[in-house]
Amino acid sequence: MKNKSIKKIRRISPPGKKGMAPGTQIYTGTNIMESSIIEIITYTDESVTSIKPSLQELVDLKLTDEKMWININGISNEKYIRAICDKFGVHYLYQEDIMNVFQRPKVEDESNYIFITFKSLEWREETKCIEEEQFSFVLLENIVITFQEKEGDNFESMREKLHSKNLIIRDRSIDYIFYRLMDITVDNYFEILEKLGNYLEEIEEGIISFPSPDDLLNIQNNKKDIMQLRKNIYPLRDVLNRLINTEHHLIKEPTKKYFKDVLDHTIQVLETVETFREINVSLKDVYLNTLSHEMNRIMKVLTIISTFFIPLTFIVGVYGMNFRYMPELEWPNGYYYIWVIMILIVIFLTLWFKNKKWF
Amino acid sequence: MKNKSIKKIRRISPPGKKGMAPGTQIYTGTNIMESSIIEIITYTDESVTSIKPSLQELVDLKLTDEKMWININGISNEKYIRAICDKFGVHYLYQEDIMNVFQRPKVEDESNYIFITFKSLEWREETKCIEEEQFSFVLLENIVITFQEKEGDNFESMREKLHSKNLIIRDRSIDYIFYRLMDITVDNYFEILEKLGNYLEEIEEGIISFPSPDDLLNIQNNKKDIMQLRKNIYPLRDVLNRLINTEHHLIKEPTKKYFKDVLDHTIQVLETVETFREINVSLKDVYLNTLSHEMNRIMKVLTIISTFFIPLTFIVGVYGMNFRYMPELEWPNGYYYIWVIMILIVIFLTLWFKNKKWF
Amino acid sequence: MKNKSIKKIRRISPPGKKGMAPGTQIYTGTNIMESSIIEIITYTDESVTSIKPSLQELVDLKLTDEKMWININGISNEKYIRAICDKFGVHYLYQEDIMNVFQRPKVEDESNYIFITFKSLEWREETKCIEEEQFSFVLLENIVITFQEKEGDNFESMREKLHSKNLIIRDRSIDYIFYRLMDITVDNYFEILEKLGNYLEEIEEGIISFPSPDDLLNIQNNKKDIMQLRKNIYPLRDVLNRLINTEHHLIKEPTKKYFKDVLDHTIQVLETVETFREINVSLKDVYLNTLSHEMNRIMKVLTIISTFFIPLTFIVGVYGMNFRYMPELEWPNGYYYIWVIMILIVIFLTLWFKNKKWF
Amino acid sequence: MKNKSIKKIRRISPPGKKGMAPGTQIYTGTNIMESSIIEIITYTDESVTSIKPSLQELVDLKLTDEKMWININGISNEKYIRAICDKFGVHYLYQEDIMNVFQRPKVEDESNYIFITFKSLEWREETKCIEEEQFSFVLLENIVITFQEKEGDNFESMREKLHSKNLIIRDRSIDYIFYRLMDITVDNYFEILEKLGNYLEEIEEGIISFPSPDDLLNIQNNKKDIMQLRKNIYPLRDVLNRLINTEHHLIKEPTKKYFKDVLDHTIQVLETVETFREINVSLKDVYLNTLSHEMNRIMKVLTIISTFFIPLTFIVGVYGMNFRYMPELEWPNGYYYIWVIMILIVIFLTLWFKNKKWF
Amino acid sequence: MKNKSIKKIRRISPPGKKGMAPGTQIYTGTNIMESSIIEIITYTDESVTSIKPSLQELVDLKLTDEKMWININGISNEKYIRAICDKFGVHYLYQEDIMNVFQRPKVEDESNYIFITFKSLEWREETKCIEEEQFSFVLLENIVITFQEKEGDNFESMREKLHSKNLIIRDRSIDYIFYRLMDITVDNYFEILEKLGNYLEEIEEGIISFPSPDDLLNIQNNKKDIMQLRKNIYPLRDVLNRLINTEHHLIKEPTKKYFKDVLDHTIQVLETVETFREINVSLKDVYLNTLSHEMNRIMKVLTIISTFFIPLTFIVGVYGMNFRYMPELEWPNGYYYIWVIMILIVIFLTLWFKNKKWF
Repeated sequence: MKNKSIKKIRRISPPGKKGMAPGTQIYTGTNIMESSIIEIITYTDESVTSIKPSLQELVDLKLTDEKMWININGISNEKYIRAICDKFGVHYLYQEDIMNVFQRPKVEDESNYIFITFKSLEWREETKCIEEEQFSFVLLENIVITFQEKEGDNFESMREKLHSKNLIIRDRSIDYIFYRLMDITVDNYFEILEKLGNYLEEIEEGIISFPSPDDLLNIQNNKKDIMQLRKNIYPLRDVLNRLINTEHHLIKEPTKKYFKDVLDHTIQVLETVETFREINVSLKDVYLNTLSHEMNRIMKVLTIISTFFIPLTFIVGVYGMNFRYMPELEWPNGYYYIWVIMILIVIFLTLWFKNKKWF
Repeated sequence: MKNKSIKKIRRISPPGKKGMAPGTQIYTGTNIMESSIIEIITYTDESVTSIKPSLQELVDLKLTDEKMWININGISNEKYIRAICDKFGVHYLYQEDIMNVFQRPKVEDESNYIFITFKSLEWREETKCIEEEQFSFVLLENIVITFQEKEGDNFESMREKLHSKNLIIRDRSIDYIFYRLMDITVDNYFEILEKLGNYLEEIEEGIISFPSPDDLLNIQNNKKDIMQLRKNIYPLRDVLNRLINTEHHLIKEPTKKYFKDVLDHTIQVLETVETFREINVSLKDVYLNTLSHEMNRIMKVLTIISTFFIPLTFIVGVYGMNFRYMPELEWPNGYYYIWVIMILIVIFLTLWFKNKKWF
Repeated sequence: MKNKSIKKIRRISPPGKKGMAPGTQIYTGTNIMESSIIEIITYTDESVTSIKPSLQELVDLKLTDEKMWININGISNEKYIRAICDKFGVHYLYQEDIMNVFQRPKVEDESNYIFITFKSLEWREETKCIEEEQFSFVLLENIVITFQEKEGDNFESMREKLHSKNLIIRDRSIDYIFYRLMDITVDNYFEILEKLGNYLEEIEEGIISFPSPDDLLNIQNNKKDIMQLRKNIYPLRDVLNRLINTEHHLIKEPTKKYFKDVLDHTIQVLETVETFREINVSLKDVYLNTLSHEMNRIMKVLTIISTFFIPLTFIVGVYGMNFRYMPELEWPNGYYYIWVIMILIVIFLTLWFKNKKWF
Repeated sequence: MKNKSIKKIRRISPPGKKGMAPGTQIYTGTNIMESSIIEIITYTDESVTSIKPSLQELVDLKLTDEKMWININGISNEKYIRAICDKFGVHYLYQEDIMNVFQRPKVEDESNYIFITFKSLEWREETKCIEEEQFSFVLLENIVITFQEKEGDNFESMREKLHSKNLIIRDRSIDYIFYRLMDITVDNYFEILEKLGNYLEEIEEGIISFPSPDDLLNIQNNKKDIMQLRKNIYPLRDVLNRLINTEHHLIKEPTKKYFKDVLDHTIQVLETVETFREINVSLKDVYLNTLSHEMNRIMKVLTIISTFFIPLTFIVGVYGMNFRYMPELEWPNGYYYIWVIMILIVIFLTLWFKNKKWF
Repeated sequence: MKNKSIKKIRRISPPGKKGMAPGTQIYTGTNIMESSIIEIITYTDESVTSIKPSLQELVDLKLTDEKMWININGISNEKYIRAICDKFGVHYLYQEDIMNVFQRPKVEDESNYIFITFKSLEWREETKCIEEEQFSFVLLENIVITFQEKEGDNFESMREKLHSKNLIIRDRSIDYIFYRLMDITVDNYFEILEKLGNYLEEIEEGIISFPSPDDLLNIQNNKKDIMQLRKNIYPLRDVLNRLINTEHHLIKEPTKKYFKDVLDHTIQVLETVETFREINVSLKDVYLNTLSHEMNRIMKVLTIISTFFIPLTFIVGVYGMNFRYMPELEWPNGYYYIWVIMILIVIFLTLWFKNKKWF
């Protein structure tokens, strides 16, 4: 059991180190990337261009009326985050939030931009664990900036659609892109839940057929995973509610209907998480019950064997005594009589146990 | 125990696939029907006609002032759902909801129609499980459309009443029909609960008379059923509250009193579900207790038998020793004396156990 | 254990049968009475008359300005309920509620009358269970009508007071009578709780002195009783709150102070019910603990006996071997030596157990 | 265990007997005192007088502008309560509350007086239980009346201060006295908690060093005590909140700051009560764990002894067989060989157990 | 186990002794310091001076327009607290709160100052416990006063920054200093949680590799620690919310954004505390499960050994009987046959156990 790893809770750490000025940008995660990968997709109704500029090129970029999606992969190098945010006027307190992987999901609306941060989730099949990735969005007039902690994302289909002449997307205001990116991330939660659900059922079947102490460890690890999930998704509900009810000029009225849809999905996700939480708890009950059933079975075997042989052993002990005068010993068929008696005892006990439903 | 099936939680899946446009209509259930069955009942105060048109006939149907109930059985073929909804101007986001069996109950009021979706329930006697069926209602001026996931429903009596000259129903505005259909569906929940309640009592009796490991599995499955029930019925309360308090012109003031009645029944259903949840939890306690009682009984049998025979076996062992000088062995009645001693020991132990109330 | 009955939860059933028109009056309980017993007490400041009319006489009754209390015992015959309610203009939805024993407590105020329904409770000493009785009140101008499910009530003292020239009661408006009847019913809850409390203590004492599997069944039954109690009394709080805050002309301002008093008592009842619920839960703990203590004691007895005799039996086994050369067997006092050794072992083990506090 | 008393929950009883008029004054407690002891302290800025009048003298007392604290000890004689309350115009519903020891803490403000009732607590060292005492306050213009269920109180220091020329107290309006009396009573709760906390720690230490079935009984009794505490103190919070927010002319604005202080203490008390509740629950866990640990230890001893001797006993049994041809029996050193084998087995088993960490 | 100390809950005590005037300043903690250490840092944009005056010097201090941070270490000597507070006009009720280590975190705004009290926390590595320190802040126009219970704090970096020409800090209004001190204290909570989290994982690993009764004691102690944490941090959330929403002139609008940041961190801390609470609960489950697994293993060993040897011992007992006529005894190879039979029994049992998966 010792070689079984305990899942560590991703712990919350001080966003700013003790005594440092608040808003100090420090990456608090473990996914160190030397430099961030920048990707800019600029599009109008007619054309789309996609470039991967260096940090300097981004900083020198001239902003036009074209709609633009700027995607940053890698948030560990503060130089990048600071330069990019400063260019677009993002407050340094939010720069800190972008780099702090322990930040709870939240939305902040400033006069000329909206800042949102939440988590993207991924299922690690090897460790049967959920991994988080810190996501931040900045929505400006005509521009949406996304900050991702790691490389690789679920937005490939978005890129394709922007490049294909999908006018539905290109036509709409920039907050629609913003919505679609959130939508994809939340829809991805369903897949995580699907896999977590499968895993829970796998454990359940394992417990019923052959319970092992590892099962309880797995249940314990699942519990931590589910707690982490809840902590990450509950605040998202509030974020979406605020987006739906905001009067901010960057969120257009028609887009709110779509955020409502995302909220609907988020609530479905939360309900499923609650369901999984309860199932996980009852898995423990099933496990402990199976265990105590096995215990009972073992006790029965011991009791039955003892009950059969203890009286018989006593009888043979009696006729192993060395008294000079023991009449039975002299009987010619004494030995056979004793076997008959013992067989009768066995038959009687068998019937008695049958009656007690121990067989 | 392995051949006992674990109830799977009907899982929530992504309503739109990752990267697809939102509102893509995809049936997410398992009840595939090639084509939907359409049924139209048109009625005025004087006449009733009932037809089963093809999809094309429905699309070409001319709408008059007559009141109309359009019932669709089968929601797996998106072509049907899209054509029908488009004819009546139902938004494509709701088309998605109609086909998504994981949709939570909800009500949406648009300017010229009201959309409601919730679940119909059925008790499967073979599996002792509750099955859900996705129901959606669209209420328009003079028209109510119902979408059912499966064939067969509880509305037969409604059809009869409309055909018989039941003026109470025909007279009233279309929202009364709408109410009656909801009412029938909610009243049907009571029957499900009746059967679930019977099943719980059956399990309880089984546990008390003879507990088996399957009982815990059944309790676990019931738990999932009850969780599913709650998830489906809780939002219905909000749906009804919104119908009662809506200012929408399609819900007439006098009908609201009836929706209040449905709400009353929904709350009764919810309270019973809560009761069942608590009973199900305590079933587990009863089970574990019965088990640990059996364990105690087994331990007692073992202890009693050991306690009787271990001392006796020691005594006969003593006189089985081969010491050259053991005076008792030479006594003429030594053997009989030893039996007397052993019988006295048995009597003493019997009294002792009686005193301890072990018999 | 099989001959022990499981308490059935009084189940909630469909108030209207599937497909029936709403408001169909059907008695849903088990206390069938062919005809209802009608009793009318008419009184003014000066005179009191009490009659027991037939249904027809009640229907033909001319209403005057005199105050009147009409009491109906028996709600199973719909003809009675319908005729009486129709005479006083009670809506048919409330007629359904009067006859539906599963109806939750509620209050409904119509323009010219107030309808209240709740439960009266009784303690059944034989079954140690709480029985419910469906109560409904209709308060009209100068008239209060009470519908009781069963014969026999706690209102005898009320009748006496009305007949005795108790001007305090006769003077006041009819809502004071209405209040007094509710007050008596709620005060009666205290008696039920008194008895339930006594019963809980009885079980507790039983468990401590000699736990039996029946105790857990009793606890389980109590749990159902207490759940039922809560379900019946919680809504009553809302009913009373609504009466206190209503602007209805039938509830006079001075009477509200009295309803507040009833509310106070209802809250006391609810708190006691909660207390009982917690006590009942901890009874189970006490039971299981007593059980596991007994288990420990049994194990100790077994262990002590085994520990004494297993080594001794080994020793006598050694000298029962038939080796040709075993020097000890030849010693003249070998047999006595062996007894000395065995007695020393017993003394040593006794001291060891004493030290472990097993005696 | 039978001679251990179960703590009875002080049960709630019907404040008015069934059918009696509401507001009937009946003492519902157990502390019967033939006559109440009346004590009046009259004071102005300059002088203080303290008298113990008879009931008649109190009734005949002429009220002046002087401030007055009237203290009544003993509430079991309704004649006293009625006469005193009637003199000061206290409503008969509150007279009932004064004498009803089951009354929840509450405040009622009438046009010319404020009525408050709550509990004083005392720790009974012999029974390790908390005892309640029913306290009621009536605050009038210049007069505060206190009703105490029992003789003896914590107000001795108040009396001394009033007599000593403590102008701070004498100067202030009468509601300050009222506040000081409440404050003293609430501060006394801290002492109760201190003692209950000590007792909980005592039990915990007892359980860890030597668990006995009585411990669980004590935990169970504590649970009832703590439930009772919460029931008595929770409503006090509302009482104080209402006093702080009242617009009543008898509560002066500057005094409210002091009531806020009392509220602060009440919340501290409640938090501690919650803490104790959780500790009490975990005491049960500690107890059950210690028990199951002992069980494990016993099982180990049994297993070790059995495991050592069962194989040895088998071996000596083998050479106790009476076969005519058993070569080992004839070996000159067979007996010694057998001892060597048995000692080797013992050594092997010892090492095996050491390896399993059973020693 | 007896030498293992139980963690005592720091108990809540009466802030004022019974009968004493309210607001009596008495230190209720255990960190007695003869005299408090006073430290004053005065600064303007241009200069900084730092002095450690005596009490008298502080009292005589002339207040100018310069900003000033007065830090007091040690709150046990009431003379100090009273003199300092009186100088700055702090109400004597708050003087009591400063010295009362059991005070819940709270904020009080008076017309010309704001009073805040909460806890600083420290992790004691030796006892694996969290220690509290009572902190109070008084914010006046241009002055912030801090009262600390103990010597040593986390503010060293603050002092350095004030002395270094860090204009960001010196420029701002005094409430910014006030914010920074709160921020540092809350950020320090994260470190405590980090250590508590490490400790929880340490226990978890210990339990899985080798569970001991001490583990449950540790879990129990952690539970008390976590309860204490929650009690101290929950009210802080309200304190910060009040600071953010206050209209008080001493809290400038721009500083509120920073208090919002502190609130954010406080909520993160609370969520982590909740997570730890749940983990601690499940640690108990893991412990009990590991224990019951060990129990099962022991039972299996006992059962296997008994099951092997009990039948064999019976067989050798049979041939130890002294019947005169036992044919097997006369067989030349009887002894060898018996060994073959016994070996076959052992093989059969081994296979049977293998089949039952007991090996």
